[in-house]
Parts: sequence; C-alpha cells; structure tokens
Amino acid sequence: MPVKLHPSARGAYDYPLLIKNLLSGLPQWRDQWIVSDDRRYTYGTFETRIARLASALSRLGVEPGQTVAVMDWDSHRYLECYFAVPSMGAVLQTVNVRLSPQQIAFTLAQTGAETLIYHQDFAPLVAQIAGSLPALQRRIVMAPATAEGCVDNFEAMVDSGSPDFVFPDFDENAVATTFHTTGTTGDPKAVSFSHRQLVLHTLAVGTALANQPDGQGFRRGDVYMPMTPMFHVHAWGMPYLAVMVGVKQVYPGRYEPKRLLALKRSEGVTFSHCVSTILRMLLDALGEEEGGLAPWTMVIGGGPLPTSLMVQAREKGISTIGGYGMSETGPVIALARVSPDDPPEARCRAGLPAPLVHVRVDVPAGGGEGELLLRAPWLTNDYPGTPAAGEALWEGGWLHTQDIARIAPDGGVSIVDRMKDVIKTGGEWVSATLLEELTLRHPAVEDVAFIGVPHPRWGERPLAVLATKGRIAPPSLEGLQAHLRAYADAGAISRYAVPDEMMVIEALPRTSVGKVDKKNLRILAEHRPEIRKQG
Amino acid sequence: MPVKLHPSARGAYDYPLLIKNLLSGLPQWRDQWIVSDDRRYTYGTFETRIARLASALSRLGVEPGQTVAVMDWDSHRYLECYFAVPSMGAVLQTVNVRLSPQQIAFTLAQTGAETLIYHQDFAPLVAQIAGSLPALQRRIVMAPATAEGCVDNFEAMVDSGSPDFVFPDFDENAVATTFHTTGTTGDPKAVSFSHRQLVLHTLAVGTALANQPDGQGFRRGDVYMPMTPMFHVHAWGMPYLAVMVGVKQVYPGRYEPKRLLALKRSEGVTFSHCVSTILRMLLDALGEEEGGLAPWTMVIGGGPLPTSLMVQAREKGISTIGGYGMSETGPVIALARVSPDDPPEARCRAGLPAPLVHVRVDVPAGGGEGELLLRAPWLTNDYPGTPAAGEALWEGGWLHTQDIARIAPDGGVSIVDRMKDVIKTGGEWVSATLLEELTLRHPAVEDVAFIGVPHPRWGERPLAVLATKGRIAPPSLEGLQAHLRAYADAGAISRYAVPDEMMVIEALPRTSVGKVDKKNLRILAEHRPEIRKQG
Repeated sequence: MPVKLHPSARGAYDYPLLIKNLLSGLPQWRDQWIVSDDRRYTYGTFETRIARLASALSRLGVEPGQTVAVMDWDSHRYLECYFAVPSMGAVLQTVNVRLSPQQIAFTLAQTGAETLIYHQDFAPLVAQIAGSLPALQRRIVMAPATAEGCVDNFEAMVDSGSPDFVFPDFDENAVATTFHTTGTTGDPKAVSFSHRQLVLHTLAVGTALANQPDGQGFRRGDVYMPMTPMFHVHAWGMPYLAVMVGVKQVYPGRYEPKRLLALKRSEGVTFSHCVSTILRMLLDALGEEEGGLAPWTMVIGGGPLPTSLMVQAREKGISTIGGYGMSETGPVIALARVSPDDPPEARCRAGLPAPLVHVRVDVPAGGGEGELLLRAPWLTNDYPGTPAAGEALWEGGWLHTQDIARIAPDGGVSIVDRMKDVIKTGGEWVSATLLEELTLRHPAVEDVAFIGVPHPRWGERPLAVLATKGRIAPPSLEGLQAHLRAYADAGAISRYAVPDEMMVIEALPRTSVGKVDKKNLRILAEHRPEIRKQG
Repeated sequence: MPVKLHPSARGAYDYPLLIKNLLSGLPQWRDQWIVSDDRRYTYGTFETRIARLASALSRLGVEPGQTVAVMDWDSHRYLECYFAVPSMGAVLQTVNVRLSPQQIAFTLAQTGAETLIYHQDFAPLVAQIAGSLPALQRRIVMAPATAEGCVDNFEAMVDSGSPDFVFPDFDENAVATTFHTTGTTGDPKAVSFSHRQLVLHTLAVGTALANQPDGQGFRRGDVYMPMTPMFHVHAWGMPYLAVMVGVKQVYPGRYEPKRLLALKRSEGVTFSHCVSTILRMLLDALGEEEGGLAPWTMVIGGGPLPTSLMVQAREKGISTIGGYGMSETGPVIALARVSPDDPPEARCRAGLPAPLVHVRVDVPAGGGEGELLLRAPWLTNDYPGTPAAGEALWEGGWLHTQDIARIAPDGGVSIVDRMKDVIKTGGEWVSATLLEELTLRHPAVEDVAFIGVPHPRWGERPLAVLATKGRIAPPSLEGLQAHLRAYADAGAISRYAVPDEMMVIEALPRTSVGKVDKKNLRILAEHRPEIRKQG
C-alpha cells in the first residue's frame, strides 16, 4: 500500500525493541531487592552482574547468534541469563529439566547449543548426555564447587567479566529465546521468540495486569515470586515484567511447598503464578494451619482453574485468577477479571484478551464453540526444524491453538477443552474439562480425568479415571453417575456425558509441567481389561 | 551483527503495530460510554462510526498516503478521526486552531493537505485561506448545517459510509499523524509520528500510568476528560490509551472553565491533563465555591507545575502530578510519582522516565545540570521540510530537548529551565523558572516571568516582568528584592539571581498553547524605556 513512510533525519536513532531496553528504568530502583538461594542483592548489583556475565561469556568465545542453554532451578542466576544472553545477541535456550535425559539430549541437539550452563544438581545428567552433543563447546556449572571437567564455575566466571560491557544494538527480530513445548501430544517441538516479541509481550501484559482490579493484578509495589519454572515459557514472561516495573523479586530455587510458603511469609510475596497442581500442593502443605496468606494474588494457567480449588484458596487468603496462554504464545493471551458481583466461576475462565490480542472462533453452524484462533505481536512464528508443523500452526494466517473455546458477548474467552480432549459421543461434543470440574465436586473424589474411549455405536464414550491417592474410598460407578446425572437434569451437561464406565488408579500420570498426561491415560485405558484383571 | 533472525513459517502472520490494533479490546467495552457535545454513544457505536467514516472518506477519493487535516474542538468527531484517518493509511494533520490565519495556512500548505475537515466555527477562517492552498481538494464541515461551498456535512458523510469497511494492514512505519510545534522560539516546524511510535507510546505510557500509586495515575475504571486540546500532541496520547483500556471518555468541546467543572461533576470525571494555566483558570472559576472535586487526578505538563498551584488544587480535592514531554516526544517521557513521605515539591518535578525511555545529561565538569538528551521508541525522527533542524535535533544519535535538567540518584528528572530561558549572569546560570516559582510565593504577585537582558558587565541580568491583571498593586522593586534575598540567604538561589530591575505590565503575552511567550517578552523588554515613558 502506498502509505507515506515516517521520515528520518541523518543521525536520528532508530530505537530497536531489545530486551536490554526493559532495563531503562533501573536507575529508579537500584536499591530494590532480588532474593534467591539465601542470597540477596540489589538491582544495582544485578545490573553489574549481567554486564560481567555477558563480558565473560564473550571472552569465552560465545558469539552473537550462538545458543546458550541453561538448566537451573528458579534463581537470580537464571534471571541474569534471561537478560545477559539475549542482550549480547545470543539465543537463550531454557531447558526443561523435568524431561528425561534422552529428551533433554534431543532438545540440545536440535538447537545445536554451543554452551551449556547448568546447576550442579544436573552434573550427572550432563556427564551422561554430553557425548551425544557434538556442537557443545563449553560447559559451565553453577555451584559453589566446580564439577570436574567443566570450563569454569559460574560465579568465578561472572567475577572475571568486565562491568563495563556494552550491550550492542541489533535487529529487534533476532531470536532471543528458544525452548521446547512439552505438549500433551506428539514430540517436543522447538519454539522461539524474538526480542521484539518479548518486549511487546512485556508491555501489553504489563498494561493488562496493572489495569486489573486490586487483588487481581500486578503493579509496582508488589513482591513477585514465580511458581511456574523459569524454563517454562519465560516463567510466563513475568521476570521481564518484574524488572521493567522494578518490584522486589524472590526466586525460590527448586519448588518445595514448605519453602514456597516460608518465602511467601518471610519476604512478603504478594504476586505469583502457577498451574493448579502447584496450588493444590501448597494448600495440602498448609493443611489446617491457621493464618491467612493474604495478600497473595495468583494467576493460574496451563489448564483450567477448578472452581473448588479457587474457593479453597480464597479461604486461605489467596486471590486466584484464571489466565490463558500456551508455549507458542509467549505465553499470556488473556486474564480473568471479576467484579464483586460476578459469580465465582468468572474467576476461573480463561479471561479477557490482553491489549493487541485478537481472538477469533469460527463457530460451526448452530454452535457457539470452535477452535480458538489468535493474532498478537508476540506469537511464535514457526517450529524451527519442523516446517510442516509451523505451516499447520499458522494455517490461514491465524495461530491455531487446538483449544475449543467460546467467546462471550463481553469478549471473554472460555476454554471448553483441548481439541484432542473433546469426547465426541453420539454426535455430541462433550467437554472432558467440564466433566472433571463437576466430578471434583463429589466429596469422595480427589483427582479425576475424563478421556474418550472408542465405542462401536456412539463413536466415543467418556471414561472416568479416578485417582484415590490411597486415602479415600472412591465413589461407586452408580454413585458417580447419580452425582453427574443431577447436573444433566439441571442442564449443565448433556445426558450423553454421564459415563457408563470408570477406572480407579493410584495417581493420574502427569507431564513434566504438571498437566494430566492424557496420552498415557489413553494407553492405560487401552489395557484396562488387563489392569482390572490384575486389580 | 550476525544475530539469528526469528524464523517465520509460510502463512505466519507478521503483526504490524498499527493504530487499528489498539481497538482489539473493543468487544470487552462495547457498552462503555463516550460523551461529547451533548451527544453520548457507546464504544459499539464508535466502532461502527469509524468504519463508516473511513469508508466515506475513501469513496470521496481520500487515498493512503494523503493528508487529512482536522480543525475542531475536543469532540467525539476528533476521536473518530484519530482512529479512522491513520487506520485507512492516510495521515491525520491536527491543526492548531489557536494560530493566526496566516500560520494555519502555512501549516496546511507545508503538509499539502488534500482534505480539510473543520468545525463550522472555523468556516470564515477556512474561506479566507482556502485560496492559498492549491493542494486542497475537498472540505468537509462538521456542523448540523452545511456551510456554503463545502463538499459535505460530516454527519451526512459518516452516515453514507459502510460499516463493513475493513482497515488494511500496511507498514507500521507509515506516518499516522502530523502537526506543527508552536515553540516559544522560531517558526512552527512540522513533526510527525508513525503508527509504530504511537502504539508504543500508548503501551509504555499506559504501563507507567497504571503503575502509579492510587490517585496519581490512570487505570481502567477511571473516567477521562482531556483539558489539553486534541490538536496538541494527540492530547498527550491519552485518547489512544483511553480507547485501548476502555474507560468512559468525556470530550468537552471548546474549553470553558464552568463547562469543564460541570462536566467533571455530571459525568464523574476522575482523570484529566492540562497545562498549569488551565488549572489556574479552573481554580479561578471555582472561586470560593464549596465542595471538593475529589477524586480528580490531573497530570500537569507543558511547563513546570508551581508548588503553590499544586497546593491550591489539593485544597479543592485535585491531585496534581507533574509530567514531562514536548511536541517532538509523542509527548510523554516522564511522570512524577510520590509517596506520602515526599515533600510537596516532589509532585512538581518532571518525573520518572516511562518504560523504555533512556535519559541522559552530559554534565559539564563540576556541575549537575545540562541539556536533557533522550532516546525512546516514539520520538519524532525528523522535522519534515527542514532537514537541517532534524539533524540538529538528533545530533550524536540522541534527541536534544533544549531543556536544562538535573537527574537525581533515583533517576528522577527535574527540568531546571529551557536552554533559551536560562539567564547567564556573571558566569552563573540562573534559572528563570525557579525565580518565577519563588516570586509567585509573594502575596502580591499574580503572574510573573523572568528573562535575561543584556548587561555590559555581567553578560546578562535577570529582569522581572510582573503582571498585575489590574487587580492587586504589585510589590515595589525593593519589596521584591527583599522577598528573593531571603531565598538567597537560605541558599535556594544565588545572590546574583536577585534582580535589580523590574517591569509591570497588564498581562503576560502567551503562546497559543498557554505558555509565556518569552520571545515577545524580550521584544517588550528592548523597548522598556519607552514603555516606562508612556506608563
């Protein structure tokens, strides 16, 4: 289109959207604290340390365009890598340390990482896989003591760097980060994000969160602690936002519920984010303990927030809010927002899209639900290494989430289910998520998943898989049916959704990020006659 | 630099930062109100009207890259042009209607505007200058009744457009808006802003304002009314932010203090912005009237916020906060932010830089003050038509503000003075702004300006120009000197700053945006012996 382009005088600065520019406010909060690993330092020290880190990596031979992989628990070191590595023009690979050694080796081989920085907890694993990584040139262990065979110790390396390192300008479309989706289906796929995408994610999500009602958002003055690992989609982008806004930050290391609760109290944490599994673990660890945790706002994503869990959390002073996103989307797309008049369920929906996000559902004739399609300036543009998957992701110029959603008249998005998890029975679409949510309201159900199993007449039928955790006797099939039939009578679900089969196991299989692993559940379900025989 | 560029699958959507994308949240607030001119409609209607407006302009022959100039008071029509004109790929020229007819003709001739949309109040002026604008192809009057010789009436035109107009995608570096600086020195110069710049300004300023403490910022839930005209640097960019966040908006037409106060009360306005002159007018109009105006947050820019005015405003329930910016900077660069412990003066400083803003002062040896230099992703890159001025603006790759500033250890910026307004006497730099601020504390001083006048021995000497407004007897020179000497004794100003000459006039000359016109004051000062003779 023949638009008129913005003129530029000789010498005018063409400002690129680079991660280093999120640090522009540092002079305003140099005295603010960053807490991690029994260590605490100020943003002023942080600023010096990222310059030293980049300087040292550069001296070791790390060049722009190369990949620096990190394996660590949530720490100040990880935060330093979040800024130093991309800002020197290299690519930060955040390795999912919960994958199997073979899968970790696969992800490192796929990116061709030249440098690996790892916590000493992973030293045996690294020793085991290093031989299969021909591109790997240098290994740096993060620990007080240097493990054998490593180039250097992280702390010593930081100390050796110059605090005067100047982060260069370059194309804002340079890749800043990469990691692998740990999807509930198929092989891990690499995604990557550019500097521009991460800066825009930070600004838009920052605006959305700061505009939330009190107790539902995140603003300067909050104290931040992640409870989604930093290897998982940039800890939802929050560390970048926390630095831009200048809040106190608390990095809890490896997640242990008691430690998370202790840090919450001792450091005055007011904002966190996690998947509902972690929230459940926290509430379990809390037990009957007295003393409210308020104020503590928590965004729950990575799957639906069950209403029952939201209510339990509220009793302990935790204000939970649903959010929606995925590995491919930076991740934040939408956040729930409620007013006092809204029903409790409103907190649990996927939420209202953040600024600049366009959502679309191509509703099939006669229905209000369909695949959620997205546009935003921070969506991954490709799966490097698997181009066909990238094209499928972007078919028609919209990102395909493979989530079935409904969009309310107020623009709010509710995720009905994963496309792969919808149960198609007798021509009806039955939401496994809704069935799980309703079944959890049964007093004798601790954890449940629904999957569709093949049926000669109805196509599929819902199978209830109950986990007992060995503590409570599960309901009988008849009891479960009676429980769900009441919802069918009330019109909440279709009569076809009431299962005529259930299976009881000790614990539900979960993926490395805590989601129910339905792929493995389906395998279990295929063998259920034998399992029953054994049981 | 050989960075790795972000890959893009075939079909992946390359999301441009266009103004139309600020509308992505509209489904969330379609029922929210926009109030203007005794007319009120919802965002839903707004959405339809901007599609119709763009469609109608397109049918009339307005093409991408062309310039559409607007002359209006603050109205819903102006807001519609803010979105429709740039989003169809054309350039919106916001004409300063307070300039003289000759100057207005100059600005329209310089941009070569093909289309002029104007309020009927300006019909005589347009008739007067149209003959000198050969590029002008069409004129559209905004009024119930069509003025003679006009192509169409704005309302009829909007009605004729299609609500299904689709705003196209194009390069985010396309020019979106243009207007002329009304600087206190030199000729008006054109500046322009791209879509990308305005979107980034909206996001960064939105983040900054939403993160302000309660009563010092702007969030969803506020009610917005501009009191800086929409022709003046996009009304500080706030209409774009207000639409993105979805607040109720109130457009007050031509500014009349009584009407502004009435709208504040009837519509529940909670957030505005203005120059201190307007705030003073409001307080004058309020007089001894009872009844607090709280909550009403007001960002004061376009010059310093005098502490005395801030205190007066606070007595009426208005929470004022200083801000800093200029025509070349979008405009917002910094916002004051205070905690309850801060002294009142903290509210009045230029403030803390917004996200992504880099500020720099090259401090001369031994001093803490110097010209404020800026980088941000929304600074004008050129003065179209005057390339040498553009190069000077960007000398060394930093935008030169021509403001003398001090940067505090916390990153806060205080503007000491305009470079042109600093008085250099006996080797000392004396701030005219500070002298004005201190002089205003004298009970018999209503309005004052200081300028430097040539002196054979000291280079320059400060001249106090007092405006009486015909109401109060001004202090004598001796009285003024005694008043200021007390501050010199306290160390607040240099002894050299105490003036040995003063001049009393009826009212200070002001520019079209309400700033004291020091250029004209200097001319008056040159002729002061004659003025005295007459007086």
